[in-house]
Amino acid sequence: MSGQNHSRDLKGPFLYHIGSADENWNLLSNPNHSGKALRSALCLYAFHALNDYWEKALPAAIAIELLHNFSLIHDDIQDHDTERRHRRTLWTIIGEPKALLTGSAMHSIAYLNLFYLKDRGINEEKVLLASQLLFKTSLDMIKGQVLDLKFEQSIQINRNQYLEMIDFKTSSLISCSLAVGALLGTDHKPIIKAFAQYGLHLGRVFQLKDDILGIWGQSRVTGKSESNDILRKKKSFPIICALEACTPKDRKVLSKIYEKQTLGQQDLDVVMEVLEANQSKGKTEEFIEFEALSAIEQLNLIHIDGWALKDGKDLVDFLVNRDY
Amino acid sequence: MSGQNHSRDLKGPFLYHIGSADENWNLLSNPNHSGKALRSALCLYAFHALNDYWEKALPAAIAIELLHNFSLIHDDIQDHDTERRHRRTLWTIIGEPKALLTGSAMHSIAYLNLFYLKDRGINEEKVLLASQLLFKTSLDMIKGQVLDLKFEQSIQINRNQYLEMIDFKTSSLISCSLAVGALLGTDHKPIIKAFAQYGLHLGRVFQLKDDILGIWGQSRVTGKSESNDILRKKKSFPIICALEACTPKDRKVLSKIYEKQTLGQQDLDVVMEVLEANQSKGKTEEFIEFEALSAIEQLNLIHIDGWALKDGKDLVDFLVNRDY
Repeated sequence: MSGQNHSRDLKGPFLYHIGSADENWNLLSNPNHSGKALRSALCLYAFHALNDYWEKALPAAIAIELLHNFSLIHDDIQDHDTERRHRRTLWTIIGEPKALLTGSAMHSIAYLNLFYLKDRGINEEKVLLASQLLFKTSLDMIKGQVLDLKFEQSIQINRNQYLEMIDFKTSSLISCSLAVGALLGTDHKPIIKAFAQYGLHLGRVFQLKDDILGIWGQSRVTGKSESNDILRKKKSFPIICALEACTPKDRKVLSKIYEKQTLGQQDLDVVMEVLEANQSKGKTEEFIEFEALSAIEQLNLIHIDGWALKDGKDLVDFLVNRDY
Repeated sequence: MSGQNHSRDLKGPFLYHIGSADENWNLLSNPNHSGKALRSALCLYAFHALNDYWEKALPAAIAIELLHNFSLIHDDIQDHDTERRHRRTLWTIIGEPKALLTGSAMHSIAYLNLFYLKDRGINEEKVLLASQLLFKTSLDMIKGQVLDLKFEQSIQINRNQYLEMIDFKTSSLISCSLAVGALLGTDHKPIIKAFAQYGLHLGRVFQLKDDILGIWGQSRVTGKSESNDILRKKKSFPIICALEACTPKDRKVLSKIYEKQTLGQQDLDVVMEVLEANQSKGKTEEFIEFEALSAIEQLNLIHIDGWALKDGKDLVDFLVNRDY
């Protein structure tokens, strides 16, 4: 079938979303809206920690980065978010139907990239295992989204339920990135498992730090939506901590606020006070510290070169201390 | 990761869409809203035409049927269609965000089914080839959707452009179903190609007959949206035939009608008159006949058993003559 031309209709939006083109689909000579590329870097890191030539795992890293970006396009549509990475979200430019299609195309292209692993000498069994892992992770991410939608309508969420949700929604892909890199690099299952576990804890550190920044960070720095997570009624970890510990009276106050359609500055102030009174920020930071230690513990189980061990630990430190 | 319970949230909607459950997610003892299952049947047919045990290709047939159903869930959201297979569409029951997620989950589950081919003795190389073909087809279907969205805003579409659109949107998956079945059943490339070509022509027959039924068929029988394709401003093949052949005056009339936001009975009558005056139905039927012959020509290139040849030809006849 011909029709290479038609891919143009989605190519512009595709390149815009991953930060390589502007709103008129012109290529940017100096792309700077691509995101952190954390997940693809982790895939290459795990592979390189076990092998000399990291380039061999590049198709998997691309697949993972595209899978992540596909989920962001669809998330933005679902949440009606208007800003990401300091720019307008895709659906606000081309409308929901076409943004939906761009996302789905990116999903398929992600997987098509995996087949290039074969050209780089990865055997078919491993390519299949890697793609199977990615599909399962896709499903986990969707489960996380479903839980997230469910939690929006409730304040009866405890810490464990929240952690389960972010494990599906966020940590699963971070863990999968490392597991795929390791899987391509070794046949030794305990090593693959340790990388996967390192990723799960890393994912929690990442998400809980995001939760802190979403309330106490500067939106100009994070480049996320203009408004604070509280104004967006996101029940993130610090909120859950407050709900678990606060007085029945404060619980009623929060409950009333979260029943409102939209929140204002006054609501924000009240919620911030309850968070303060219950040391929510401190408790979240404590939990991040605990997850950071668990991540490093897993890393210590793997016998890797000094540079790889140091890089893996530095990343944990970076995620704990970042302010954007 | 645990969380099997959470899949329940999508399992009901999933089973509802494929016709196995009712609106309360209760399993139906006698499912009768599952659609024709044409594509999965074609996959099994091609495999069985070349092999004894059709059960071996079953995971691929399931993958194909789910891929098709995934695209229907997302299509219904995009087009805001409210009825499919005599029932409410999924998004009207659970809302757009959750329907979107159900579709994406189905997409991933489709591909996960392919891995079961390994357990049935299909080698890894073929599993990879089959999944590669399915991904490419996913992309083709999206290209078709994009063209379809584009054509909605224009009456400057000629027959070839329309055929290209339906080749992407509809014929590609029908062709892929046969190609995957053949690919799993033989190493002989010309046979795989002939099945794929048979599928392309079959897809055109299928879609153009759909176009006729969408205007002249009874909606009660087809189970599609209540309204006629004309009222939905769908520029299907008969409309394109009329636009190509009609007087400049009639072209202006049509153009005016298609600029309207919504069409009424009077517009419908006018369009029907123009279609009549330009023998649009007859021209479409002629083209279907031509495509049917081309399909059978491809079938004759393959040396298959008498029953398979007869079944393949009977299917063409059935698609040409169906009235639902």
